[in-house]
Amino acid sequence: MSLILSRADIDFLLFDWLDIDRLSSEPLYAHLDHGTYAAVIDLAERLATDVVAPVNKLADQREPEMMPDGSVVIPKEIGDALEQVRRSGLFAAAQPSELGGMQLPFVVEKAAFAWIQAASPAVSGYVLLTMAAANLLIEHGTPKQVETYAVPLLAGENFGTMCLSEPQAGSSLGDVRTKAIADGDAYRLFGNKMWISGGEHALSGSITHLVLARIEGAPPGVKGLSLFIVPRDLEQDDGSLVRNDVSLAGLNHKMGQRGTVNTLLNFGEGRYLPGGSAGAVGYLIGAEGDGLRYMFTMMNEARIGVGTSAAVIGYTGYLHALEYARSRPQGRALRDRDPDAPQIPIIGHSDVRSMLLTQKSFVEGALAFNLYCASLVDRIRCADKAEARATGLLLDLLTPIAKSWPSKFCLEANSLAIQVHGGYGYTRDYDVEQFYRDNRLNPIHEGTHGIQAIDLLGRKVSMENGAAFALLRDQIAGTAARAVICGGALAELAQIVDGFLAEVEEVTRVLLAIGDSEERLANASLYLDAVGHLVIAWIWLELMIASEAGADAFHDGKRTAGRFFIRRELPKIAPLLATLRTVDRTALDASLECF
Amino acid sequence: MSLILSRADIDFLLFDWLDIDRLSSEPLYAHLDHGTYAAVIDLAERLATDVVAPVNKLADQREPEMMPDGSVVIPKEIGDALEQVRRSGLFAAAQPSELGGMQLPFVVEKAAFAWIQAASPAVSGYVLLTMAAANLLIEHGTPKQVETYAVPLLAGENFGTMCLSEPQAGSSLGDVRTKAIADGDAYRLFGNKMWISGGEHALSGSITHLVLARIEGAPPGVKGLSLFIVPRDLEQDDGSLVRNDVSLAGLNHKMGQRGTVNTLLNFGEGRYLPGGSAGAVGYLIGAEGDGLRYMFTMMNEARIGVGTSAAVIGYTGYLHALEYARSRPQGRALRDRDPDAPQIPIIGHSDVRSMLLTQKSFVEGALAFNLYCASLVDRIRCADKAEARATGLLLDLLTPIAKSWPSKFCLEANSLAIQVHGGYGYTRDYDVEQFYRDNRLNPIHEGTHGIQAIDLLGRKVSMENGAAFALLRDQIAGTAARAVICGGALAELAQIVDGFLAEVEEVTRVLLAIGDSEERLANASLYLDAVGHLVIAWIWLELMIASEAGADAFHDGKRTAGRFFIRRELPKIAPLLATLRTVDRTALDASLECF
Repeated sequence: MSLILSRADIDFLLFDWLDIDRLSSEPLYAHLDHGTYAAVIDLAERLATDVVAPVNKLADQREPEMMPDGSVVIPKEIGDALEQVRRSGLFAAAQPSELGGMQLPFVVEKAAFAWIQAASPAVSGYVLLTMAAANLLIEHGTPKQVETYAVPLLAGENFGTMCLSEPQAGSSLGDVRTKAIADGDAYRLFGNKMWISGGEHALSGSITHLVLARIEGAPPGVKGLSLFIVPRDLEQDDGSLVRNDVSLAGLNHKMGQRGTVNTLLNFGEGRYLPGGSAGAVGYLIGAEGDGLRYMFTMMNEARIGVGTSAAVIGYTGYLHALEYARSRPQGRALRDRDPDAPQIPIIGHSDVRSMLLTQKSFVEGALAFNLYCASLVDRIRCADKAEARATGLLLDLLTPIAKSWPSKFCLEANSLAIQVHGGYGYTRDYDVEQFYRDNRLNPIHEGTHGIQAIDLLGRKVSMENGAAFALLRDQIAGTAARAVICGGALAELAQIVDGFLAEVEEVTRVLLAIGDSEERLANASLYLDAVGHLVIAWIWLELMIASEAGADAFHDGKRTAGRFFIRRELPKIAPLLATLRTVDRTALDASLECF
Repeated sequence: MSLILSRADIDFLLFDWLDIDRLSSEPLYAHLDHGTYAAVIDLAERLATDVVAPVNKLADQREPEMMPDGSVVIPKEIGDALEQVRRSGLFAAAQPSELGGMQLPFVVEKAAFAWIQAASPAVSGYVLLTMAAANLLIEHGTPKQVETYAVPLLAGENFGTMCLSEPQAGSSLGDVRTKAIADGDAYRLFGNKMWISGGEHALSGSITHLVLARIEGAPPGVKGLSLFIVPRDLEQDDGSLVRNDVSLAGLNHKMGQRGTVNTLLNFGEGRYLPGGSAGAVGYLIGAEGDGLRYMFTMMNEARIGVGTSAAVIGYTGYLHALEYARSRPQGRALRDRDPDAPQIPIIGHSDVRSMLLTQKSFVEGALAFNLYCASLVDRIRCADKAEARATGLLLDLLTPIAKSWPSKFCLEANSLAIQVHGGYGYTRDYDVEQFYRDNRLNPIHEGTHGIQAIDLLGRKVSMENGAAFALLRDQIAGTAARAVICGGALAELAQIVDGFLAEVEEVTRVLLAIGDSEERLANASLYLDAVGHLVIAWIWLELMIASEAGADAFHDGKRTAGRFFIRRELPKIAPLLATLRTVDRTALDASLECF
């Protein structure tokens, strides 16, 4: 059994639940069939198992190092693994054939990529950013920009970055100060960027930075931001490369995900003088002042990518804990008083099974949910305009949840994986402590938990007069109705979910009626967690319906984990909803001095 | 303001709430007064600030290293810091003067030591173990053993260890295999011990191991275990030292608390031949077969020590997060749409204040509770027999909570401290990620969370026909009654606590009525968490009553944090109690194959 992901589960999700074979009836995917999908997953599983997972510990132990000349040294083994990922064609798997891709369904690409993410979040980070950068260019760049910059990204020849944050502008992107000054057809950029993953390394031919900056004279705030392509290396007329004026100011040394180099970059400090003068040469993407909107194309993809990563780090932790619990003998059944009896594997202890079920219900639920979100992208691509629009709204609403719920609860799963291992789990000789450290990043980057909460309650829930929220409600109610028809235990669980759906609706009405945004959003994080739990409970109902006919241990496991989540986890949102309903002002009113 | 602990809070807890000045009216503490207590805390604060905290990062970064000759190298700076702690007399602070101590109240010693624990959990670990080993010897050893072994421990000349676990016997101590064979007045020990903190180093003159082993012919299980003193170095008749047959087999490399060397020790493998033959020379403590009972003297002390450590690691994390939140400008008030307005410190955002209040209510509540437990030891020492007995029962009941609640929830506080810092908190340039890693150990060692849960529900709650539980109920009800008399907001909060007290009582009755222990204890961890929250809510009522007259920001803070905990945290136990009340069997009945 793989300890990276469960192939049986991936197959169940893609083929039994999401029924992706059906996609082949769409013109867009008519060139594909079940065999292709399975082959792609096979390939990803093999790459993850044979190539990527073996370097994951190394990526943690031998962290990227900055050299005096401003270059970065990363262990050769990481580069070799990435080279094999590159050769597999995964970077471009979902792209049309004219861009060198297989034109795979988005959900298949994401399921395949989930294997790489589970095998090594740090190594997969380079690929994720590069794919997202390419997608942004394809969506918003000129044909020439696509050819020059996106195609080499899709081929994995160059890697991409997203340069948003600055020391004074983390969550508050409106405070970005990097300046762009027109210089012929191009611009020259000057400023400091912080937290840039993949900002410098020798893993790829060159690096294509996508940089948010403010054109001289642009208004303050987010409306003044434009987006630029800033290649690390500039091609001369004779085809040779010179360094652009982008220099490495330092590395951040992280608690986890150490293998993904994280950098401070200086643009235009004059270390390099392309064309004879200081200033990083950049090329405007699209229209002036639309930079943040374009960047959000990339950020939304990155957010779902982060959510999936969080889910699968939790997933691999769960599989490790399960293997340990099955093989580690310790103690005896509580009713067994014979000290001479052999010890039992710890999975025999109810508390351990409880920890395993918590993990299972979190990580399988989260991965299913993130693949569901990915499948919405395919629906958008294939549907008519009205359905595509509605599906797009639903996906917009779900994105902050897809990012945040796994980041919080699959991190909790990783903590439980350590707990199942006892002292062994706390040592670096085992793998689970690294998973825990790696996953701790996910509630922070690509918009913190608190930022996602404000996005959900402050924007998404109320957009288009609550149309997205109404769609979600209908989805959940529809699933619950189907579960009720199934009868038995499923019907009972569906009623629990239905009850909480009604409560969430009511709380949403109460909150949206509050005029003052500070008060409305004061406890937005609780709202995010509550809606997140409801969504995962809904997904579990879905999975249980899809498992109904299955009589084997696998489907029994789905039913058990679903029941566990809905009976034991979902009710935990009741006190959160109560706090929200009464519009608790304790934190809002706390004086700044009282801490 | 100190970022280690809040002196104002420690003074409030000791002098205003626990009213320790009153202890000077007891004969045992008649030699002490307010000035002495304050001077001891002063000393501890200075040591923590000037000596211990400065080496905490180093203790993490330069982990102990095993040399080919079986010795262990630890950075000199750690040894220097410990030497200064030794000279301060803190090792023996609570001991009677004839043992070289100051005969301080236990609670004062613990409050003083909390500063050292907060400044560096890893460094303080050596001291904690040494003090606990000395206390065990004082309680159960012969006068000669006390003189020979306890006194050098109290002087900090030798350090102590507790050698319980073995590779096959972690939580299941009945499976200990280490063998003891009589050899004249002494014994020879043979076996392998695992997870031994402080098992080898050159920080002290020698090391005194307290070792659980089974005398040849003893029965299986815990009844066959005896306890032995095994000095690392044996004194010859001529006063010179020879090595005992205790050798270092390896080090465990931990995720955190790296500065406390953690070892695998082989006893009697024949590397050293004391008196010409293999076998580690050991001296029996007390009676044969009573080893585990003696060890529990030490373990109970260690458990409260672990709980306090967890509380103060959370506490220092909170203070760091608070400082950061006050000084880091980012974003603007939600209703402020002017992008040219200056950014506000992030403490201005409600979500950040919520995270800070969560931390504050967890860490201040946990520290108060642990000091309360320490104050019970003083009450036991000073009270008449009947009251001492009752207080002892209450302390027995509270010990698993004192260990577990801070270990779980102050770890959560450390996670929130990272979250407040955003990306910076995830880097090793800041301190909070180390706190998080350090604190992750606490739910594991000295009895895991699950073991504590079984101890609470399986033993403590029902002992002496529920006498201890009845005492706790009376304490909580008494405090709630006093809070009701205070009226206003406090009375309302008291009613909430009272309501949950009644629910916990009812659930306890339901659970104790279940005959089958597997079923009764199936969800014991939920019970531990629920009772823990109730206890911390009770402590908050206490602190709020003690703050009632205070009109300044400090006392306002106590009221705010107490209200936050009781209104927003305490109700989270309702779903846990519901699961317990219905005796949920999902985990118990889950088949081993369904995972």
